[in-house]
Amino acid sequence: MKIVIIGAGGTIGQAVVAELGARHDIISAGRNSGDVRVDLKDYASVQQLFRSVGAVDAVIATAGNVHFGPLGEFTPEQYAVGLNDKLMGQVNLVLAGQHVLNDGGSFTLTSGILTHDPIRYGSGASMANAAIDGFVRAAAIELPRGLRINAVSPNVLVESLPAYGAYFRGFDAVPAARVALAYSKSAEGAQTGQVYAVH
Amino acid sequence: MKIVIIGAGGTIGQAVVAELGARHDIISAGRNSGDVRVDLKDYASVQQLFRSVGAVDAVIATAGNVHFGPLGEFTPEQYAVGLNDKLMGQVNLVLAGQHVLNDGGSFTLTSGILTHDPIRYGSGASMANAAIDGFVRAAAIELPRGLRINAVSPNVLVESLPAYGAYFRGFDAVPAARVALAYSKSAEGAQTGQVYAVH
Ligand SMILES: NC(=O)c1ccc[n+]([C@@H]2O[C@H](COP(=O)([O-])OP(=O)(O)OC[C@H]3O[C@@H](n4cnc5c(N)ncnc54)[C@H](OP(=O)(O)O)[C@@H]3O)[C@@H](O)[C@H]2O)c1
Ligand SMILES: NC(=O)c1ccc[n+]([C@@H]2O[C@H](COP(=O)([O-])OP(=O)(O)OC[C@H]3O[C@@H](n4cnc5c(N)ncnc54)[C@H](OP(=O)(O)O)[C@@H]3O)[C@@H](O)[C@H]2O)c1
Repeated sequence: MKIVIIGAGGTIGQAVVAELGARHDIISAGRNSGDVRVDLKDYASVQQLFRSVGAVDAVIATAGNVHFGPLGEFTPEQYAVGLNDKLMGQVNLVLAGQHVLNDGGSFTLTSGILTHDPIRYGSGASMANAAIDGFVRAAAIELPRGLRINAVSPNVLVESLPAYGAYFRGFDAVPAARVALAYSKSAEGAQTGQVYAVH
Repeated sequence: MKIVIIGAGGTIGQAVVAELGARHDIISAGRNSGDVRVDLKDYASVQQLFRSVGAVDAVIATAGNVHFGPLGEFTPEQYAVGLNDKLMGQVNLVLAGQHVLNDGGSFTLTSGILTHDPIRYGSGASMANAAIDGFVRAAAIELPRGLRINAVSPNVLVESLPAYGAYFRGFDAVPAARVALAYSKSAEGAQTGQVYAVH
């Protein structure tokens, strides 16, 4: 398969490349890294991505930014960071990609455990992640030509504990290599409309 | 209790007023209807709402618009309708209200069954509803002073079948009066962080 991975240079993305790279033709993408450059929150940039990579069999997004901060100080503009970047950035891939993916191709988006298991300062992430999961279940029943879509919802990663561990006390962190398996199941399997919790 | 209901003039709102009006002091609100006027998607208007109603014990939102359309034709701007109005409109109530509600007061937001049970043309609603549910679970653990927050997630209403029935074939429609009970449970009970499915 020809697979484009947006966020391939990141903590999760590198593990997905390691899992899928031996069997498939990978095109890596990011704002400032990868074979091709794209900013997911800019719809024109996403359309340009598909013009430059051509027809692909799978699109995997392991990218997306959200704001973290106390609820008492959160502003509408700070929620918009997660909505425009992590949520709509990944949705933009589906809106543009549904018209150009090969028949039977798949989208795999990334949400996260905060959908159902919130932490302090995480209301923007819980909002964006939940929206991704809801969108994935809905988009699955309308995609044409056998196209599929799933989300991967990881726990905090072992590799990210040095950076975020203090905010995730008591969470049973998962290795990136185990999270990467869910992307394989989505892209190489046949299921659709699923949210793969790797918790 | 002093309760402000935004969307009090609507199908669900009228039933909530009927349920709670006998026991409580109700202030109704809407863009073009009710005791006070507010447009939820305008944060300054929401702040003005709280200045005009003063301290209240419960805020209930039975309002919020989303765009419906086929996934193949959906645009980022059409998803923004649901994100700015139904989602952030209700979130704006929490951002502004958390600083002015009476201790132990509650927020009750409205999402909907499409979070988990999607229909054709409904990806914008599934996205916004899921985001509301995720936000409610997260905000509940950060609200100060015993403030509480829950969501009500109704099935399609019996009263709405003449308008939307063709899009909800096979859904077991619920009467507005039964949906109204969930708003009572949220505002008059003691739970927080719950999504009350009235399915
Ligand atoms: N790490 C965790 O513990 C964890 C747990 C659950 C969920 N997640 C979610 O998983 C996703 C990836 O996490 P991660 O830890 O792997 O992140 P990361 O290490 O920061 O990597 C993110 C990657 O995405 C690219 N990127 C970021 N924003 C982009 C944009 N707007 N357009 C295109 N590319 C963009 C970055 O490259 P450029 O800088 O070159 O653009 C980078 O390669 C995030 O959405 C995160 O919320 C992470
Ligand atoms: N009806 C159903 O079957 C059903 C099922 C599940 C979920 N829901 C959800 O429940 C909510 C209410 O549904 P409904 O059928 O009762 O709607 P409705 O009959 O159209 O009533 C909506 C009410 O909200 C007010 N409103 C709308 N947008 C507003 C805004 N931006 N700011 C302030 N007020 C606003 C309207 O008054 P003004 O025009 O004066 O502003 C009206 O009173 C919606 O979010 C809907 O998605 C409905």
